Amino acid sequence: MSISAGATLRTLRERKPLVHQITNYVVMNETANATLALGALPVMAHAREEVEEMVALAGALVLNIGTLSPHWVEAMVAAGKAANEAGIPVVLDPVGAGATRYRTDTARRLLSEVRVAVLRGNQGEVATLVGVEAEVRGVESIGAADDAGELARLAGTTLGLVASVTGPVDHVSDGDRVLAIANGHPLLATVTGTGCMSSAVTGCFLAAKRGALEAAVEALVAFGVAGEDAAVDAKGPGTFHVNLYDALAALDPATLDARARVT
Amino acid sequence: MSISAGATLRTLRERKPLVHQITNYVVMNETANATLALGALPVMAHAREEVEEMVALAGALVLNIGTLSPHWVEAMVAAGKAANEAGIPVVLDPVGAGATRYRTDTARRLLSEVRVAVLRGNQGEVATLVGVEAEVRGVESIGAADDAGELARLAGTTLGLVASVTGPVDHVSDGDRVLAIANGHPLLATVTGTGCMSSAVTGCFLAAKRGALEAAVEALVAFGVAGEDAAVDAKGPGTFHVNLYDALAALDPATLDARARVT
Amino acid sequence: MSISAGATLRTLRERKPLVHQITNYVVMNETANATLALGALPVMAHAREEVEEMVALAGALVLNIGTLSPHWVEAMVAAGKAANEAGIPVVLDPVGAGATRYRTDTARRLLSEVRVAVLRGNQGEVATLVGVEAEVRGVESIGAADDAGELARLAGTTLGLVASVTGPVDHVSDGDRVLAIANGHPLLATVTGTGCMSSAVTGCFLAAKRGALEAAVEALVAFGVAGEDAAVDAKGPGTFHVNLYDALAALDPATLDARARVT
Repeated sequence: MSISAGATLRTLRERKPLVHQITNYVVMNETANATLALGALPVMAHAREEVEEMVALAGALVLNIGTLSPHWVEAMVAAGKAANEAGIPVVLDPVGAGATRYRTDTARRLLSEVRVAVLRGNQGEVATLVGVEAEVRGVESIGAADDAGELARLAGTTLGLVASVTGPVDHVSDGDRVLAIANGHPLLATVTGTGCMSSAVTGCFLAAKRGALEAAVEALVAFGVAGEDAAVDAKGPGTFHVNLYDALAALDPATLDARARVT
Repeated sequence: MSISAGATLRTLRERKPLVHQITNYVVMNETANATLALGALPVMAHAREEVEEMVALAGALVLNIGTLSPHWVEAMVAAGKAANEAGIPVVLDPVGAGATRYRTDTARRLLSEVRVAVLRGNQGEVATLVGVEAEVRGVESIGAADDAGELARLAGTTLGLVASVTGPVDHVSDGDRVLAIANGHPLLATVTGTGCMSSAVTGCFLAAKRGALEAAVEALVAFGVAGEDAAVDAKGPGTFHVNLYDALAALDPATLDARARVT
Repeated sequence: MSISAGATLRTLRERKPLVHQITNYVVMNETANATLALGALPVMAHAREEVEEMVALAGALVLNIGTLSPHWVEAMVAAGKAANEAGIPVVLDPVGAGATRYRTDTARRLLSEVRVAVLRGNQGEVATLVGVEAEVRGVESIGAADDAGELARLAGTTLGLVASVTGPVDHVSDGDRVLAIANGHPLLATVTGTGCMSSAVTGCFLAAKRGALEAAVEALVAFGVAGEDAAVDAKGPGTFHVNLYDALAALDPATLDARARVT
């Protein structure tokens, strides 16, 4: 399967898949708006009473533990299992894994009880989950791994999924191939929730294309290019954040692949 | 009672009524800021321990089931009953009714246990609640009813309230009269929570004017005109969203009625 | 200890302290982004299962009762006690104290069970907590106290902490000295959560400097100057809100002290 963020974006905008997100309070509005700007339909629903029914309507499920608590974790497990049964791809964003035992344990539990298609995290989070030493401060990863590509490959192999490790350069691997994506902009690090948005966008692409490795790469290309466009007239994190939605909506499928910096 | 969005907006800005909102996590900041920009005072409080006391201070109560869960539903019922006893008007936004049984059942329960002044929803949600066939995808209504005005009238009659059915053209009915409001802009559909904002704005107008039909129409005029103004310089959903708050704050009571497209 | 918002801001940006915030749903994204724009690292975590471990990693803890409920209150108490044991300063924002008994009681409980370094509230909230008569509407304070400086001094003495009473002019007191800060802009009152942001910024400054009185004053200088800068090109509350993040990120330590209006 070949990589074409433009082709998948075109499909996504035609089909407008529903992307079910059980995510954190901090970024819920932001990931919903990113999903909508890109061209898919977000739905946020976390009640144990409805998650199984809701996920069955969706093209992808995104689980994000950014502000986890017991009821929400149970809902994530239930939704994840229902998604697995229905063949709906699951993205896990293990926000802050490594910072507290509760976050690490919950991310591990989700990985063990739910078949995750793509694990999208920063280096510290992913390193924690594969047992490599890492420094995590709160929900931020501090310091770069010696080899982020190797970390992605290791995560892919060990966890049996597609690892999407974002940072100044992103690395995506299924344990076999490793792809590096050099799109994006430093201003992305100045707005909270841009990592969570990239997970949501990954969910959107998974809902539009089979092939988790390709979809994960394409999602980071699209999000990174939008970040580049958003930076053009930005005066700081506030205007950049606003521009990001405009840029996601304005992404041009016809030129997207030419702008991809994938190796 | 006559319709004058300008006159009611002037009253609203003089009185600055408190509008109590028990709403969803995704849009809480957005509806609070829309309320404040318009000229009223928002308060978000959902604890069973305080909702009855809080709603007693308010000029209107807005209930929104966008990210419902059992504790929140109990608080909505309690707040709604307290509002009814105190003669405070209640707006219900049945987000996603029709998408899952839990949402449909909860919206029905609220309609049965609380006397709702205005039901503000999209066509799919309102159709679900009056038992008409509709397609709802997540929290989005897909496809237009053959006759949205007739749906509003039917909802008004069947449910014994004012139905405010929003879409490309909005329709408001008390079961007897049906009014169509053609203000607004397509960019409103590209930002999450604009429907929820229109429910909050409806609460603001209800807090400033007796006559639920008139207040509901005026609210949609005001919100629609703000949408039109916000679109002028917008480059996409991000800048439109930001402009919307500026436009709500800049709404001019003196020219608002001349811009109303009500039939 | 002398007051220099510029010097502390420089320290803060070098150290990038983690600021743990247990805050309300309405402003979580906003206070996280304000923290990040200023140069510190926000972390939002509220689960009883992890707050003690998380706060131990932080340079300050900010407790905000804006959308309180029992589980959250227990987590705030636990986090506050853990912060006290570890010598980590605690900021309390008693949102809406005076509006409902639950809010007043919770704010009192937090003050009694947790050693609070800085109480940051509006006049109505702080007056309620020192037993002075005040009118609170929802979460807004209505009408100015005769002497806000005297209120701050009284709160400082009675409660044994630094009281940071914000309004058109802010007053900070440890019960002995009273400082007035005249920075800021009226547009700050048109955006929800700017009070909460000032509490978060207070947490950031406390994490970068010993001396709660000085840090609280410096935080309001920095936030007020950012408000002034954000107002320059603002067309209303929406653009002002966006500009505020740009302005926080662009604050210049070299010129900040010259712009401070502290008496």
